[in-house]
Amino acid sequence: MKNILVIGAGRSSSSLIKYLLDHAEAEGWKVSVGDMNLDLAKSKVNGSAHGEAFELNALDEVQRSKALLNVDLVVSMLPARFHIEVAKECIEKRIPIITPSYISEEMKALDEAAKEAGVILLNEIGVDPGIDHLSAKKILDEIDDQNGEMLAFESFTGGLIAPESDDNPWNYKFTWNPRNVVLAGQGGAAKFIQEGQYKYIPYHKLFRRTEIIEIDGYGKFEGYANRDSLKYRDVYGLEDIPTIYRGTFRRVGFCRAWNYLVQLGMTDDSYTIEDSENMSYREFTNAFLAYSRHDSVELKLRYQLKIDQDDPIYDKLEWLGLFSERKVGLKNATPAQILQKILEEKWSLKDDDKDMIVMWHRFVYRVSDGLKEIHSSMVYIGQDDVYTAMSDTVGLPVAICAKMILNGTIKLTGVRLPIEKEIYLPVLKELETFGIKFNEKEVEAKLY
Amino acid sequence: MKNILVIGAGRSSSSLIKYLLDHAEAEGWKVSVGDMNLDLAKSKVNGSAHGEAFELNALDEVQRSKALLNVDLVVSMLPARFHIEVAKECIEKRIPIITPSYISEEMKALDEAAKEAGVILLNEIGVDPGIDHLSAKKILDEIDDQNGEMLAFESFTGGLIAPESDDNPWNYKFTWNPRNVVLAGQGGAAKFIQEGQYKYIPYHKLFRRTEIIEIDGYGKFEGYANRDSLKYRDVYGLEDIPTIYRGTFRRVGFCRAWNYLVQLGMTDDSYTIEDSENMSYREFTNAFLAYSRHDSVELKLRYQLKIDQDDPIYDKLEWLGLFSERKVGLKNATPAQILQKILEEKWSLKDDDKDMIVMWHRFVYRVSDGLKEIHSSMVYIGQDDVYTAMSDTVGLPVAICAKMILNGTIKLTGVRLPIEKEIYLPVLKELETFGIKFNEKEVEAKLY
Repeated sequence: MKNILVIGAGRSSSSLIKYLLDHAEAEGWKVSVGDMNLDLAKSKVNGSAHGEAFELNALDEVQRSKALLNVDLVVSMLPARFHIEVAKECIEKRIPIITPSYISEEMKALDEAAKEAGVILLNEIGVDPGIDHLSAKKILDEIDDQNGEMLAFESFTGGLIAPESDDNPWNYKFTWNPRNVVLAGQGGAAKFIQEGQYKYIPYHKLFRRTEIIEIDGYGKFEGYANRDSLKYRDVYGLEDIPTIYRGTFRRVGFCRAWNYLVQLGMTDDSYTIEDSENMSYREFTNAFLAYSRHDSVELKLRYQLKIDQDDPIYDKLEWLGLFSERKVGLKNATPAQILQKILEEKWSLKDDDKDMIVMWHRFVYRVSDGLKEIHSSMVYIGQDDVYTAMSDTVGLPVAICAKMILNGTIKLTGVRLPIEKEIYLPVLKELETFGIKFNEKEVEAKLY
Repeated sequence: MKNILVIGAGRSSSSLIKYLLDHAEAEGWKVSVGDMNLDLAKSKVNGSAHGEAFELNALDEVQRSKALLNVDLVVSMLPARFHIEVAKECIEKRIPIITPSYISEEMKALDEAAKEAGVILLNEIGVDPGIDHLSAKKILDEIDDQNGEMLAFESFTGGLIAPESDDNPWNYKFTWNPRNVVLAGQGGAAKFIQEGQYKYIPYHKLFRRTEIIEIDGYGKFEGYANRDSLKYRDVYGLEDIPTIYRGTFRRVGFCRAWNYLVQLGMTDDSYTIEDSENMSYREFTNAFLAYSRHDSVELKLRYQLKIDQDDPIYDKLEWLGLFSERKVGLKNATPAQILQKILEEKWSLKDDDKDMIVMWHRFVYRVSDGLKEIHSSMVYIGQDDVYTAMSDTVGLPVAICAKMILNGTIKLTGVRLPIEKEIYLPVLKELETFGIKFNEKEVEAKLY
C-alpha cells in the first residue's frame, strides 16, 4: 500500500483527486486530501473507500510534519509561493513531490539537495506550464533527431469558454483566477525575439499588438504576448533561435475592447480609489474621464477613447455595466479590484457552462531538403462545472506523473521540468485516452 | 560669530552659498561648506574670507559628528533620502536645520523631539516645494481674512529654458535632474479632485490631458498633472475644497511629442534591454516597433504612432536622433536610461544658456458679494549657467530663512513647512529685491 498526500482541494484539484481515487484499488494507493476547508476536502474525496479527507494548514509546521508521516508521494496544489516549505520537508523525509507551478528561484536552489536525497521535485506539470512543455518538447526533439535547425517557435494557450456556452459579447468568461486575468501583462514590458531582433511591448500597448491564429474546426483566436518569451530558450535548448514568441489566446475582438479598459486606467492595482465603497460603477468610470458639468459619462467615454457610437466595442463596454448606478461596495479598493468585481458579475461560469483549453504551437525549421513548418494544436472542452477543461488539463498530467513516479517509470531525481522523453511520451499517450490530444500538421513553410 | 554648515555644494547650492557669504560680514557668520567633492566645495566658497570648504561624507557618522561641532545652523542640500540622519543628530545637538526637500514620513516623526529640543527643522523651502507654498499661502490667508470660501485652487510650476536661449524644436532643455524629467509622472496615477469628483489619470494618458495657460508677456504654457494634488488639501487647510489641481509646465507642444516616447515604451525604467551596450539609437527605437523585413524604422514608427509625415511632431522625434546609427554604449541599461542619454546630447544647457522658472496659481473663491478669481504668476530668468533660475529660486529662500532663524525673526520650533505668515511675508518681500516677484491680478471669476 502506497500513501499519496494531496495538499489543497480547490477547483484545480478535482480531476487530479478523481484520477487518483479511480486508480487507487488497482495501484494499491491510499489518497489523503488535506485542505484548510475540511468540507471542500470531503467533497473531493466523495466518500471513497480509498480516500481520506482531513483539515490541514500546510503552513503550520506541526500540522505539516504530522501530515507527512508515512507518505510516499506529495502533490502540492497550494498557491505557488507556498510550495517551498513543503518541498524542503519532503527532501528531508525523502518524499517525491509534484507541483503544477512555475519553478521559483528558491525551488531551483533545492536541486542538489533533492538529488542527494534521491527524490524528484517535479514542477510545471499542469496545462500552461505543463502540457505546453510536453507537446512542444516532443516535436522539438523530433526535429532535433532530423538534425533540423529551429528558426522560429511560437506557442499560445488560452483558457476560454466553450462554444456551446459562449453567450456574451466578449466571448469570454472567467475559467480561472479572475485577479490574474485582470492583471495579465502587468509588471514590465513583454519581451520576445523576432528574426534576431529583440522586441519589447509596453503594457499599455500589449493588447494592440496581437496575432490572429485560426484553428481547424474552432475558428479564429487572437494572441497577445506573454511577459517573457526569452526564458524558454534555455528551457527548450533553443539558445540561438532567432524567433521565439509565447502568448495567451482570447477570442478575436476581446483585446481591442480590453485595451480600452487598460487605457482608461481601470486595470491599475497600484493605488486605491477615494471612498470606493460608496461610489457607483458609473462614478468609477467617470473617475477616469475629464470633468464636464454637462456631458454624459457615456459621451465623454466615447469621445476620450475615440469610439464611434455604432462600434460594437461600445456595446461590450456598456454590457459590462460600466454606466450603471450599482454600488461598488468595496472599501479602499484599487481600480483593478473594482473592475474585477464588475467583471465577476458578468463573466462568471453558470452551472451548466463548459470551459475550453486551446493550445497551439508553430515550429519553423531547416533540414537538408529545405524549410519545414509544423503546427500542433489541441482543443479540449470540459465535462461540467467541476471537471472543467482547466481542472482536467491541470490535474491529469499531475496524476499520471504521480502514478509513474510511484510505479518506477519515472526514475529521475532533482528539481525537474517535464521535458524529458521518459516523462512526456507516456503522459501525452495517456492524456489522449482522456481526449486531450494534439493535432499535428505540416504546412507550407513561411518566415516573415 | 555664528557658524553655518552647508552640506552639499552641487548646482542648487550656488546661489545659497553666495548669499550666505555676501551677508557673512554684516551678520557675523562663518560659512563652512562640506561636500564629498572638495574641489566643488572650494569653487563655491571661491576664496571668501568668511567661508571654508572641506571634504565631507555626511553619511559617515564620525565625519558628520565632527562637522556638527560648534555649529549654529545646518543647511542640508543632500538628496532628500539622506536628510534624516543629519536631522536626528541636529536635534540631539539642538541645531536648527533647513532642507529644500519634501518632508518624508520619517522627518515628520521627528516633530515632537524637535519641539522638545527647541529647534526648527524647516523643510520644503526651495522653489517647488518652497516658493509655491509662500506665494499660495499668502493669498489663501488673505482670502481667509475676508471670510472667503475657496472653490478652486490650481497651481503649476515649470523649470524651462529662457526665451533667449530657446533654440530647439522641443522648446525644452534640462535645467534640473534629467533622470527625474524622464521618469516624471511614473509610479501611480495622477490624482486630483474637480468640482467634488475625484479624477485619476493613468501614466500612459498623463501627457494627453493637459491644460493651456497663458502668462502675460511670456505666451502660452501647457501643464500636466502632478502625482498627488490631494495631499495639498491638508497642507493648505483646504480640506473641503471641491477643486484642487497641481501640475508641471512645459512649452505648448512638448507633451504631445513626449507622449509618443511614453507610448513607444522608451521611458520604462523597470527592465533592462538585451545587449544595450552595442545597439544603435536606431535599433533602440526599432525594439519598440513591430518586426518587418522590408519597412524602414522611420515608416514603422510613423505608422505605429499614427503620425502624418508632415506633422511637426515627427521633426521633433527625428531631431532627437532616434533614427541615427550612434551607439548607446550603456551596459544593461533600462529604456529610460538609454532615452536619458539620447536626450542629454540634445537638451543640455550650453555655457551661455539661461534657464527660467515659471509659476502660476489660480484661486476661485466666494465672498459675500459674489464669486472672485485671482491669478498669481512669477517668471524668473537665471543670470548665467552657475547662478541659474533654478539655483536662485531654490537657494535664496533657504538662505533668507537661515538668516531669519539665526537673527531670531523665525521663532518656531518643530518640523515645519513655510506656510506661516512670520515666514512667508518676509521671505517673499526679500525675494522681490532679487527680482523674484509675483504678479497678482483679479480676473472675471469662472468655474466650469
